[in-house]
Amino acid sequence: MFYVIGLGLADEKDITVRGLEAVRSCRRLYLEAYTSMLLVPKEQLEAFYGTKLIVADRDMVETESDAILEGAKDVDVGFLVVGDPFGATTHTDLLLRARALGVPSRVIHNASIMNAIGACGLQLYNFGQAVSLVFFTENWKPDSYYDRIKENSELGLHTLVLLDIKVKEQSEENLARGRKIYEPPRYMSIPLAVDQLLYTETQRQQRVLSAKETLAIGMSRVGSSKQRIVAGTLEELQGAGDIFGPPLHSLVIVGKRLHPLEVDYAEESAINKAEWRRVAQQVYGCRLDE
Amino acid sequence: MFYVIGLGLADEKDITVRGLEAVRSCRRLYLEAYTSMLLVPKEQLEAFYGTKLIVADRDMVETESDAILEGAKDVDVGFLVVGDPFGATTHTDLLLRARALGVPSRVIHNASIMNAIGACGLQLYNFGQAVSLVFFTENWKPDSYYDRIKENSELGLHTLVLLDIKVKEQSEENLARGRKIYEPPRYMSIPLAVDQLLYTETQRQQRVLSAKETLAIGMSRVGSSKQRIVAGTLEELQGAGDIFGPPLHSLVIVGKRLHPLEVDYAEESAINKAEWRRVAQQVYGCRLDE
Repeated sequence: MFYVIGLGLADEKDITVRGLEAVRSCRRLYLEAYTSMLLVPKEQLEAFYGTKLIVADRDMVETESDAILEGAKDVDVGFLVVGDPFGATTHTDLLLRARALGVPSRVIHNASIMNAIGACGLQLYNFGQAVSLVFFTENWKPDSYYDRIKENSELGLHTLVLLDIKVKEQSEENLARGRKIYEPPRYMSIPLAVDQLLYTETQRQQRVLSAKETLAIGMSRVGSSKQRIVAGTLEELQGAGDIFGPPLHSLVIVGKRLHPLEVDYAEESAINKAEWRRVAQQVYGCRLDE
Repeated sequence: MFYVIGLGLADEKDITVRGLEAVRSCRRLYLEAYTSMLLVPKEQLEAFYGTKLIVADRDMVETESDAILEGAKDVDVGFLVVGDPFGATTHTDLLLRARALGVPSRVIHNASIMNAIGACGLQLYNFGQAVSLVFFTENWKPDSYYDRIKENSELGLHTLVLLDIKVKEQSEENLARGRKIYEPPRYMSIPLAVDQLLYTETQRQQRVLSAKETLAIGMSRVGSSKQRIVAGTLEELQGAGDIFGPPLHSLVIVGKRLHPLEVDYAEESAINKAEWRRVAQQVYGCRLDE
């Protein structure tokens, strides 16, 4: 059996009991380590599972799927994914490949940022499509995410912004010269994300985002005991660098279909409570009790 | 500490290791039993946890929150929620109440239908807002969900349709007479959901949904070993009553931003593979390899 097992969000104890049983039945275990990461090192997982993990980078998953699946008709092989297995396209590829090879597979679900983001107090059914924000470079500042936020925003919906993770990336020079030298991992912070959002706004000027009048909620290390939730205007979050601490960071752009209960719940996390309520009321048109 | 613990989707083993540790530390445990349900009886949870559970119905959660939270400053109290804790508004209420009482709280996340729906092979970031479909009655056929599907549809996005669950509901007569007599639980099936969707289409006639030209994916018992995934046109799903089996059922309306890889992945589950590909190609404009 080929198991694809969600690990949840924070550490080795976020696996489900069913997932742990599957892990312990596996002859070979891969840890997907490029679309997201847990907040603890691989060794901590290995100690808890009582077994070694093979780190699977993007290259391996995309080009060596048959090696990953080898023997899985006869013995159990596990593929561990941070969050839920259906976050990233490449895992669908793996499951399709298993199917083609006649290898039976089973998916074991877990929390992912796509649903745990509800912890910010905004209702999940008021979220539109999620978007990804990649690190801008000098010459490459892709902004199609802006159109997606605009679509959500016109419907009054919230947007989850997934912030870029660069693990085992090569510099342009090393890539061009074919040198397998990798840069240190980078994780986009909330303040940098806001910089980029506001930069795109200055370029596109469709008034989708405003430093002082767009509300947002930043969340770091969701699901861990060190989770931080910080609510405010984009400008307030941009200036709140130290509050969020280490990765991973996520960001929610608040839509106009904001409910008073959502305002109340998130107010606890607001950088400036009065300002949070003022914008909710005057800009978002939320009817709040005084 | 007041723990709000997600149980995941199917049975007692879908709880996380962290969740199970919290359960075992709790002096008192409530099981929320009205917004969703696991696929196993309460007794099976109790046997696995080694402790009794207090069933919390809507009434109790909405009117007796202080009783639920009693003593949680000094001992651990747990509130168990099927799926993830942030699916339903009332749990935000409970957490707000805990905050007001000065009771520390911790949320333990898990998979919910909001992210596990990815198992159908459609990419989560191509989903728009989720909608709820309630049981129509002779005199009450609320159709605001139709506007939400239309909004998603105009953007080409998929829609997760959450199907109604009626647990511990009173008949109109018993309600009017104040008799606490409850109807047997009811869970909306995929074919009934399609009936209702197409009924609303005949009323609204905005060509959002079409029996023969709207693709959809029905899923039953997501996350369990008895999960079924069935893809087809709305008409095909409407006629596929017996395939889905017992509750819970969920439905996805496929949007036009359909990717060829999504078509390939779901084809395995199609009632009629040729028809699935034909509609994807001719109606949805998907460029598929022949």
